[in-house]
Amino acid sequence: MLAYPAALLNLDLIILDPLPNAPSKQVLNHSEHLSGSFTDAQAIAELASKVDILTVEIEHINTDALEAARSSSGGRSVDVQPAPSTLRTIQDKFLQKQWLEAKSIPVAPFQSVDGTESAILAAGKQLGYPFMLKTRKLAYDGRGNFVVRSQEDAQEALKALGCGNGEKETLYAEKWVPFTKEVAVMVVRGKNGEVRSYPPVETIHRNSICHLVFAPLRATDQGVLQRAKEMAEKAVATFEGAGVFGVEMFLTSDGSLSINEIAPRPHNSGHYTIEACECSQYENHLRAILGLPLGSTKLKVPSAVMVNLLGPPAVDEVANNALHIPGATVHLYGKAESRPGRKMGHVTIVGSSDAEVRARVRPLLLQLGHPQDPSYGEISKAKGGDFGSGSGPKKSSKYPLVGIIMGSDSDLPVMRDAATILDGFGIEYELTIVSAHRTPERLVNYANSAASRGLRVIIAGAGGAAHLPGMVASMTSLPVIGVPVRGSSLDGVDSLYSIVQMPRGIPVATVAINNSTNAGLLAARIIGTSIPPLLERVSAYSKRLENEVMGKVSKLEEVGWEAYVVKK
Amino acid sequence: MLAYPAALLNLDLIILDPLPNAPSKQVLNHSEHLSGSFTDAQAIAELASKVDILTVEIEHINTDALEAARSSSGGRSVDVQPAPSTLRTIQDKFLQKQWLEAKSIPVAPFQSVDGTESAILAAGKQLGYPFMLKTRKLAYDGRGNFVVRSQEDAQEALKALGCGNGEKETLYAEKWVPFTKEVAVMVVRGKNGEVRSYPPVETIHRNSICHLVFAPLRATDQGVLQRAKEMAEKAVATFEGAGVFGVEMFLTSDGSLSINEIAPRPHNSGHYTIEACECSQYENHLRAILGLPLGSTKLKVPSAVMVNLLGPPAVDEVANNALHIPGATVHLYGKAESRPGRKMGHVTIVGSSDAEVRARVRPLLLQLGHPQDPSYGEISKAKGGDFGSGSGPKKSSKYPLVGIIMGSDSDLPVMRDAATILDGFGIEYELTIVSAHRTPERLVNYANSAASRGLRVIIAGAGGAAHLPGMVASMTSLPVIGVPVRGSSLDGVDSLYSIVQMPRGIPVATVAINNSTNAGLLAARIIGTSIPPLLERVSAYSKRLENEVMGKVSKLEEVGWEAYVVKK
Repeated sequence: MLAYPAALLNLDLIILDPLPNAPSKQVLNHSEHLSGSFTDAQAIAELASKVDILTVEIEHINTDALEAARSSSGGRSVDVQPAPSTLRTIQDKFLQKQWLEAKSIPVAPFQSVDGTESAILAAGKQLGYPFMLKTRKLAYDGRGNFVVRSQEDAQEALKALGCGNGEKETLYAEKWVPFTKEVAVMVVRGKNGEVRSYPPVETIHRNSICHLVFAPLRATDQGVLQRAKEMAEKAVATFEGAGVFGVEMFLTSDGSLSINEIAPRPHNSGHYTIEACECSQYENHLRAILGLPLGSTKLKVPSAVMVNLLGPPAVDEVANNALHIPGATVHLYGKAESRPGRKMGHVTIVGSSDAEVRARVRPLLLQLGHPQDPSYGEISKAKGGDFGSGSGPKKSSKYPLVGIIMGSDSDLPVMRDAATILDGFGIEYELTIVSAHRTPERLVNYANSAASRGLRVIIAGAGGAAHLPGMVASMTSLPVIGVPVRGSSLDGVDSLYSIVQMPRGIPVATVAINNSTNAGLLAARIIGTSIPPLLERVSAYSKRLENEVMGKVSKLEEVGWEAYVVKK
Repeated sequence: MLAYPAALLNLDLIILDPLPNAPSKQVLNHSEHLSGSFTDAQAIAELASKVDILTVEIEHINTDALEAARSSSGGRSVDVQPAPSTLRTIQDKFLQKQWLEAKSIPVAPFQSVDGTESAILAAGKQLGYPFMLKTRKLAYDGRGNFVVRSQEDAQEALKALGCGNGEKETLYAEKWVPFTKEVAVMVVRGKNGEVRSYPPVETIHRNSICHLVFAPLRATDQGVLQRAKEMAEKAVATFEGAGVFGVEMFLTSDGSLSINEIAPRPHNSGHYTIEACECSQYENHLRAILGLPLGSTKLKVPSAVMVNLLGPPAVDEVANNALHIPGATVHLYGKAESRPGRKMGHVTIVGSSDAEVRARVRPLLLQLGHPQDPSYGEISKAKGGDFGSGSGPKKSSKYPLVGIIMGSDSDLPVMRDAATILDGFGIEYELTIVSAHRTPERLVNYANSAASRGLRVIIAGAGGAAHLPGMVASMTSLPVIGVPVRGSSLDGVDSLYSIVQMPRGIPVATVAINNSTNAGLLAARIIGTSIPPLLERVSAYSKRLENEVMGKVSKLEEVGWEAYVVKK
């Protein structure tokens, strides 16, 4: 994945990998690629002798050899990025946690554990059960991790982690974090210390291996995205050296974040950046270590998902299936042998909305099985179709683009027309009651979280002293459409004036009294500005209206005006 | 460029190219790549002996050798895509034109010319001056083309085209097409005959070499995009075989299109698809020739531009400069030698609007020189900044996202506030007069062309019997914001009712009477749904309003309510 951006920039890569036909060596022609272990000092020295700058895609590497290459006295010295000291800190997860804690970056409570049963029991007493027992080094993709659920697990844990004989400094324990979501942020750090982050994403693991990545992260608490970004940037800024870093975090139900671990390299949770961002994590890694200007980390599509393809079975079948999915790019790694749990490739799917991306990924997830897995129960229940089909029961979508809210259930007979229109266009929406006067706190929460939950438009209907649309508009930056609902006394003029006559600074897009059909259509037009095929559907809708009238013209001509019956 | 998608799909490529270190051979490791000419039958036969399917990236190839490989009797036969007969027709531009004409596809009038002065003069008499004289084969990037401006040019033309000795069937003449734009459409054709096209783009040539490609094409005549698509698909459907085809067209001032030429392969005008579309032309070429499902040809970004980097000077300098531009991807081809006019690479820039893309590409165009070139005079005058800065004189942008229109110049004092707001947010707009009652035709044209010109929102202000917003909304699918302007008699209630009380089916987003500030803010919110950083600016704007009020709270506290002076 580094080879492609390297080729575009006319950079020569030489690759050290134990396998002679490693994926990276297949996709870049160079007669000097090396075969050898990442822990072999001599292999690293040989690589160093051939290059100007040396970087890593794995942290489980001989850092002494990197240090030697960098400071090779007398001989030729080589730039190593990120710094070997950074790799040394990060590759030992206990040191990594100590480092982060010392820099006041939130991590779960942890403590060193030597390879004895008594040490494990002491950790259990300190941290409570369950807790995580991990090897300090070489733990990844679930290897080297053990969940200690009770005192009885201690012996089994030692055995599972291969530490039955009481070695010191091989294990550590971590307090269990009851996370609601796992979040990852890719951060790129330039040679000059400049730090830029990609948007926070949600990662879903299965058997401790990254399974799905959804970009961008959606959160009911708007502040989560900003805090995740800041925490990741702050953490990466503490390390020496340039390159891309993957920062994995836990989000708990109270909205707090802590860092799980950091990878000093391009990371699985950043693969989506290849198709979804203005500059991929791989190109940015190259730019960073070369001292070139860092590339833009912005998403260039509204929504993306990445699915890992783990070996066997079905990798080829899933990949073939993915070729039928619009917006999907299949990445097969060309690994010779497929083993259970081995990453054989991935698929990234982009789309114009969360709903579309989830509808697109759904057939792959069903094919991959485990529909009982709660992590994507929601997805497998999602509606089909390009933007969601609207064929299911009339309920709120889990991934709405439009929020339809009303001050009271008595407004429903009016507001349902907006929902019907959105169903017709296949636009995902939610429909609920938010009363400005009776549920003011709910109003505040709804308006504040609307954008970070992925909504793009809010339709608010209210009658009488209709405050809902204007109050919502004052607490969100999204466009708010106001529907004046006719009450019992003033024929709806009270509602209309209450909604339309907003002060300068806070606009409400007001439609005609009781005309929530037009609110739905306006929402479709607004969302059509970012999903062009939708504008074509709006155009087809207008054409239908025209044809209906032309039908009446013909009928009037045919039967004459006296016999013509006006339908109510 | 084919090598990257081939690697992702685990496909083995073997490349025939005259150069041992050709760009394609650099980026895909394979010991069996071949060196040899595209006209060398033996080289083609050797390649055919090593592969299952054979395709081309250049049409100037020995088609007899391809035919032989395909029908190799006795021995092993190889699938060749597209069909050798297709390549044979297309590589001879005269045959190509005859083919298209026979299929009723519009081409400029043309005629065969043998290599004599008298034949050229006869063509001039028939086609008028100036006309194009071209060699039938091996004409590309301006080579093999000559503009015959008068009878006196005949001798020079023969000399320039290397045909001084009267050979037959080497030249042909084409009537000059006074085009207003050059348009290109990439089309992919599957083995089953399925045809899909990418969005039409505008191409700008310099010295007959492709210089710039803007995607998507914008047109004042909405029908042009549909007609370009249909014409390109129809043309490609006439040829045998699978793969990607580039269709180049002329658009003239009356809105009519004719085909200039067709390339039976991925094409320079489709390079933008790599970063800008859901599936690139290269991946789709592979999918097509392999009989895999065709990929989505949709744009995944709102706007893109491609700039070719021609040799020397300055290729490296321009590429380095491009690394500073957000959304830019630099493609250097790794060609050993840079010659004047040789394509050494290209840069694709994506962005959230035409204005943003043009602002991003501007520094490269200035660096490439020739600012007197009328083709991008407009660009070099464009405003800077991420979305355009709004710093220039208050005039309409060439690449507006918002159209502000009003029924009369007397509405300007009200409507200017919308423009001021948009300037503040750096959103490009145009501001003009369109009267529903006094310029009804202008109204129709404005509304019909708004979307195809790239507008995303229309703000329409009118007073009294205010028909403008509703009439515009009935002829466009874009969101229309209506500003009721207060007239002399009914305090604006007449305008408000005329605008807001639209019938079911045609919505107008109505704001408060005379409050075009809110119309500008609503437009910013709507455009923010597709340009997220804009929503942050809206949020900052609301924060400023809050701070202003809090300042007044403090002042009231400080001076007391009796001494407090209310500012008008």
